[in-house]
Amino acid sequence: VQFIAESAADGITERLFTVGDVPGVLWTATGTLRSSALVLMAHGGGQHKQHPGPAARARRYVAAGFAVAAIDAPGHGDRPRTERDERFAEGMRQRRASGGALGPHIAAYSTELSASAVPEWRATLDRLQDLDDIGPDAPVGFWGVSLGSATGVPLVAEEPRITAAVLGLAGLEFVGGAAPRVAVPVEFLLQWDDELVPRDSGLAVFDAFASREKTLHANPGGHIAVPAFEVESSVRFFERHLL
Amino acid sequence: VQFIAESAADGITERLFTVGDVPGVLWTATGTLRSSALVLMAHGGGQHKQHPGPAARARRYVAAGFAVAAIDAPGHGDRPRTERDERFAEGMRQRRASGGALGPHIAAYSTELSASAVPEWRATLDRLQDLDDIGPDAPVGFWGVSLGSATGVPLVAEEPRITAAVLGLAGLEFVGGAAPRVAVPVEFLLQWDDELVPRDSGLAVFDAFASREKTLHANPGGHIAVPAFEVESSVRFFERHLL
Repeated sequence: VQFIAESAADGITERLFTVGDVPGVLWTATGTLRSSALVLMAHGGGQHKQHPGPAARARRYVAAGFAVAAIDAPGHGDRPRTERDERFAEGMRQRRASGGALGPHIAAYSTELSASAVPEWRATLDRLQDLDDIGPDAPVGFWGVSLGSATGVPLVAEEPRITAAVLGLAGLEFVGGAAPRVAVPVEFLLQWDDELVPRDSGLAVFDAFASREKTLHANPGGHIAVPAFEVESSVRFFERHLL
Repeated sequence: VQFIAESAADGITERLFTVGDVPGVLWTATGTLRSSALVLMAHGGGQHKQHPGPAARARRYVAAGFAVAAIDAPGHGDRPRTERDERFAEGMRQRRASGGALGPHIAAYSTELSASAVPEWRATLDRLQDLDDIGPDAPVGFWGVSLGSATGVPLVAEEPRITAAVLGLAGLEFVGGAAPRVAVPVEFLLQWDDELVPRDSGLAVFDAFASREKTLHANPGGHIAVPAFEVESSVRFFERHLL
């Protein structure tokens, strides 16, 4: 891992890094020699590793004792747009103009990205565990919804170092066939009136997890209307399983 | 309200009372002049007002700053069994012997009890608000699942003094037509593999609530397998809405 920049404010140190050509950010409590647990945080579609929502969540997690790492998804943040990303954006424009359904288009693009995002996350975790202030023994959690779950569900299914995950806002068409291979404790967020994810498809993902402990949190409203109190709930979830 | 007995241990005062012929119990923090909020706690079928589960929950709530009141449901605890209760028990024996479905039988009995339990709860609340250490201004919440929701859903629908409720383990056949008249914040518990409540029927109750804020917590396992962490979640819920 190569560190590019470092800043600190309000007791939180933010370090920008790259792993290969993937840009990332690591938030830790300033002055802590070793974090007791690490949360990998995947942003949503159209966001980036330091998007205000994920960044505020990261600060809350650091205050609760976690180190938090985020990387830009392919085609997002500081990463180059490819022809694939342009095709996706053009497809969104066309569907918005014609009133076509956005959900299946977003789901198809999200699962396409996950093919490269999953190995990128695993390589990032390798490098983070080399750091003195993380180390190989800190328990590892994952937080990611929507695009973050299109990557997160197959990642959690494949990566034994991740032992607890907050996932959600994703139906079967987002997560491919990976859900039945997820066996760690999961908190799964579902928006009851999600315009991008059919309710039954979201419920089917929750149903498919093999986890002995899984808990579904469903709230009214559309895709981006997850209530603020779910941040606190996710803190308790990670405290229960990682600390 | 007539007080019958009082004891105190571990900072919690427990007072047994009656309102008319309904026996109840009130738990408060010892030495507190006035509780800041009150939680009404309805037990499940076959339980009673001081059943170990509800009593432990009550102690947790008192530690978080709430007063908690429970009454025996009709035919439960210190209350007389009627012919109706005997008929229900006999029906359970027959169904267990023949392998018949228990859910509809329990649901029918539970809704029958709620017809008298709802006015009993309202009269109890009247009397509790007369007490110096509760008073008329303390916000009021309700906790009750299964039989507690067969009573709780119509109670919360009718009783404007209750401003937040934890409900659950109940399908449409438990709660009658009252769910669409519930408009306060609700945390709704659903057991994903509930042998007494069909999953779709439980989801339909959650769907029917008119509440702007409602949150569904679904967990794997059968009717009585609600995970312990839901107690803490309900504390946060009541803290958000009552304190």
